[in-house]
Amino acid sequence: MMRKQKPVKDSFVIMTELVLPNDTNTLHNLMGGRMMHLMDIAAAVSAQRHSNRIVVTASVDNVSFREPIRLGNVVTLQAQVTRSFSSSMEVHINVWAEDIPSGTKVKSNEAFYTFVAVDQSGRPIDVPEAVAETPEEISLYDGALRRRQLRLVLGGRMKPQEATELKSLFVVE
Amino acid sequence: MMRKQKPVKDSFVIMTELVLPNDTNTLHNLMGGRMMHLMDIAAAVSAQRHSNRIVVTASVDNVSFREPIRLGNVVTLQAQVTRSFSSSMEVHINVWAEDIPSGTKVKSNEAFYTFVAVDQSGRPIDVPEAVAETPEEISLYDGALRRRQLRLVLGGRMKPQEATELKSLFVVE
Amino acid sequence: MMRKQKPVKDSFVIMTELVLPNDTNTLHNLMGGRMMHLMDIAAAVSAQRHSNRIVVTASVDNVSFREPIRLGNVVTLQAQVTRSFSSSMEVHINVWAEDIPSGTKVKSNEAFYTFVAVDQSGRPIDVPEAVAETPEEISLYDGALRRRQLRLVLGGRMKPQEATELKSLFVVE
Amino acid sequence: MMRKQKPVKDSFVIMTELVLPNDTNTLHNLMGGRMMHLMDIAAAVSAQRHSNRIVVTASVDNVSFREPIRLGNVVTLQAQVTRSFSSSMEVHINVWAEDIPSGTKVKSNEAFYTFVAVDQSGRPIDVPEAVAETPEEISLYDGALRRRQLRLVLGGRMKPQEATELKSLFVVE
Amino acid sequence: MMRKQKPVKDSFVIMTELVLPNDTNTLHNLMGGRMMHLMDIAAAVSAQRHSNRIVVTASVDNVSFREPIRLGNVVTLQAQVTRSFSSSMEVHINVWAEDIPSGTKVKSNEAFYTFVAVDQSGRPIDVPEAVAETPEEISLYDGALRRRQLRLVLGGRMKPQEATELKSLFVVE
Amino acid sequence: MMRKQKPVKDSFVIMTELVLPNDTNTLHNLMGGRMMHLMDIAAAVSAQRHSNRIVVTASVDNVSFREPIRLGNVVTLQAQVTRSFSSSMEVHINVWAEDIPSGTKVKSNEAFYTFVAVDQSGRPIDVPEAVAETPEEISLYDGALRRRQLRLVLGGRMKPQEATELKSLFVVE
Repeated sequence: MMRKQKPVKDSFVIMTELVLPNDTNTLHNLMGGRMMHLMDIAAAVSAQRHSNRIVVTASVDNVSFREPIRLGNVVTLQAQVTRSFSSSMEVHINVWAEDIPSGTKVKSNEAFYTFVAVDQSGRPIDVPEAVAETPEEISLYDGALRRRQLRLVLGGRMKPQEATELKSLFVVE
Repeated sequence: MMRKQKPVKDSFVIMTELVLPNDTNTLHNLMGGRMMHLMDIAAAVSAQRHSNRIVVTASVDNVSFREPIRLGNVVTLQAQVTRSFSSSMEVHINVWAEDIPSGTKVKSNEAFYTFVAVDQSGRPIDVPEAVAETPEEISLYDGALRRRQLRLVLGGRMKPQEATELKSLFVVE
Repeated sequence: MMRKQKPVKDSFVIMTELVLPNDTNTLHNLMGGRMMHLMDIAAAVSAQRHSNRIVVTASVDNVSFREPIRLGNVVTLQAQVTRSFSSSMEVHINVWAEDIPSGTKVKSNEAFYTFVAVDQSGRPIDVPEAVAETPEEISLYDGALRRRQLRLVLGGRMKPQEATELKSLFVVE
Repeated sequence: MMRKQKPVKDSFVIMTELVLPNDTNTLHNLMGGRMMHLMDIAAAVSAQRHSNRIVVTASVDNVSFREPIRLGNVVTLQAQVTRSFSSSMEVHINVWAEDIPSGTKVKSNEAFYTFVAVDQSGRPIDVPEAVAETPEEISLYDGALRRRQLRLVLGGRMKPQEATELKSLFVVE
Repeated sequence: MMRKQKPVKDSFVIMTELVLPNDTNTLHNLMGGRMMHLMDIAAAVSAQRHSNRIVVTASVDNVSFREPIRLGNVVTLQAQVTRSFSSSMEVHINVWAEDIPSGTKVKSNEAFYTFVAVDQSGRPIDVPEAVAETPEEISLYDGALRRRQLRLVLGGRMKPQEATELKSLFVVE
Repeated sequence: MMRKQKPVKDSFVIMTELVLPNDTNTLHNLMGGRMMHLMDIAAAVSAQRHSNRIVVTASVDNVSFREPIRLGNVVTLQAQVTRSFSSSMEVHINVWAEDIPSGTKVKSNEAFYTFVAVDQSGRPIDVPEAVAETPEEISLYDGALRRRQLRLVLGGRMKPQEATELKSLFVVE
């Protein structure tokens, strides 16, 4: 049976949040853990839109935090599925922080989260194939295999020597 | 001037949390983003204990989520600094989930978070050298350099070819 | 001095929220008060974007709740300024509720919130003139005067007989 | 069958809340959306007391916000049913804000919320007739019909020309 | 200088709360710790009303929990100062739990909290003398001395043999 | 049938919490009620560990609050069962507050909470006998009977004259 196909752009999600006092540390900056919590929610909605299923977080790739985000700032998250593998989906998330009164808006973060679609009993279930259309979507689609190998290697479920996609990064022949 | 030294075990933190309704998804399982939020708080306290400073999250390495954690479960997080680099500290976090009435306790997660110590104006400030003592602490200390290169490569701040520690993983010469 | 002009579309905001357990009543439906809280945040960000100022809620027009929104549903709010008057801005908000696993998406609410831009001491301060461009934006712009009279009459600050815009609604001459 | 009667004063509710950091904006003032959330809870308890049923918010009439309410202030809400219509009840809410150390107490808001009583499946169910006794209760009871027409007109479920109660407000014959 | 006098009834506070999902354990009952949190807020407002000062919790007497309070129940707390001692005030709190749809209302708890009035730097500051008027208020006023001795004995700041008020309870001469 | 025995040390719990803005009053100090909420959670996990059952809070003994705990401080709670009686367990909790940047750590509180183990229907169910081993555990075990009598007397379920353990405290013969 042919697997159902679905354009990745159908999974696009925009989330806007105001940084509230309880989200901040004693310097009045958004805490990293709270940011990852918001990214997880935005990405989960994106994976739900692609799969029309309940989804659970399977993994999060490296996230780095560059600029402090201040109390009262507006955080905008954009999430979109990049590629699917059987029951799992990789979601790409971009985050911006705006200090509206001072008119500044900076790219704050970028991350890849992976979700698994599950049925009501929590068992994995297949999802549609993700179809990349624009050049940027295709580039993210292509990179998904390499990132997946990295996840498997880092999770101890693939030997580094077998990660052919990944290996090419480190070896100049 | 000699840099101050401090045993990594002084930064040990145990955190115990009860999974409450608002932490869960519609399957009544702890959401991944909420878990990463808890890990960030436990790890931040550990980094504070090492540096005696305010700390901010700099990055989070890959985290994967294996077993679902249920509403009412007890989550135990243990965090300890592995190594420090100028103003930054890598923290290792282990997480267990217990369903006390059914008597089950499973290892749920493991992750590395990196923090930067800052002064009251948010500027990075040097931290003590971390001294590993037990074999496990030494092994985590030794791996820290390789994980740091991976973070720099993934963050686009080091070329893969220059990541000598990392390269050896993928190349059998 | 000419007042600055700004297209209303620059104030467009999309906010996506997941209905969590603590947002719901004993029937597991989103509570009306929580919904109005979310609408207030989305609309405040829109008014901030128009004015580049801190804003405070001045009033909320009638809101009615038609369909129950369930635990786990995805709520999407879209907010955009319709018109400005000196230091105040009217914001139009549309809300949809999606039950993604069952594939349903319904229009849930629609409301008008009014905000006042203030300086750091909380004093009202003028905002740019709002420029409506599309037919829908123009229609919302035109209706803003009538809704404003209704607010003033309902707030006891204008006599019904003086509300010329409003009067025409009820009187067929 | 005669419909059960119940004095409106049996639905009287007093709610007292302390303004906490997460309820406030960057000026340390209570956010309008949070206030409407509190009003919804107070009013819902009042409607529950009248109907002895689960209730859901059906609509909220215009609310305006006059004075800023500060962090640490005490907010007192008083709610009471004004009148019932089959399965729906209109509730009147008054709100005061007290800054106890400075000894000030101001009337902050006043609003009308409407609730529908439902059974366990969420279906509307009849409620007792509300009996107004004091002059103030009778005045609120009498105005309820006019406010109801306004809600129906604003909700697009009644033509302005048919809103006879409302029309008299705007037309001096 | 004469100390200012103030009737205890001026400190009367009613607080009404809805039991929300995050307040409950896995049996869907209100957790004891959350209840003590609510009692602390109600009692603090009462102590603020008596002293017109910022107040901090000094101690809580024994609290026992009899009946489970269910998700969706309405909790009503009534708090009133019983007596003051220099800068401290004892507050008596009664709690009722109502399950409105089933028409049950039970007395759930009763407790005494003690607060100290402080100035902006957190230093204790004298409060008005509390004047008891009704028989019930007088009885609570009279018992306050005995409860205070018990607190001092239990806190290790008074020897049991010196607690003359308390001693009479246990000794039949 | 012999009752199962279990060392009290198996119920040991460490909980670490960061004081967040919403936990504090206008002086930026942790509120007493929030502290009692945290103590209840730590103690409940300890009682769960002893009984392998769902537990409900039965009572809390006098708690006094000495030192203010500041926003951003780290609160460490240690809880351990002292003794069990049929279905109830007394838990001893110690609390420390650390201001890590200033290098101060103070003992903040100490309290006894009592829990009852229940089955899925909420009915009390027997728990293992608690075995004290160290001198400190034995001293807490021995005092548990006296504290229990005090709770019964204060809860009106035992006459002071019958509280033989307690009486000896106040009478020098």
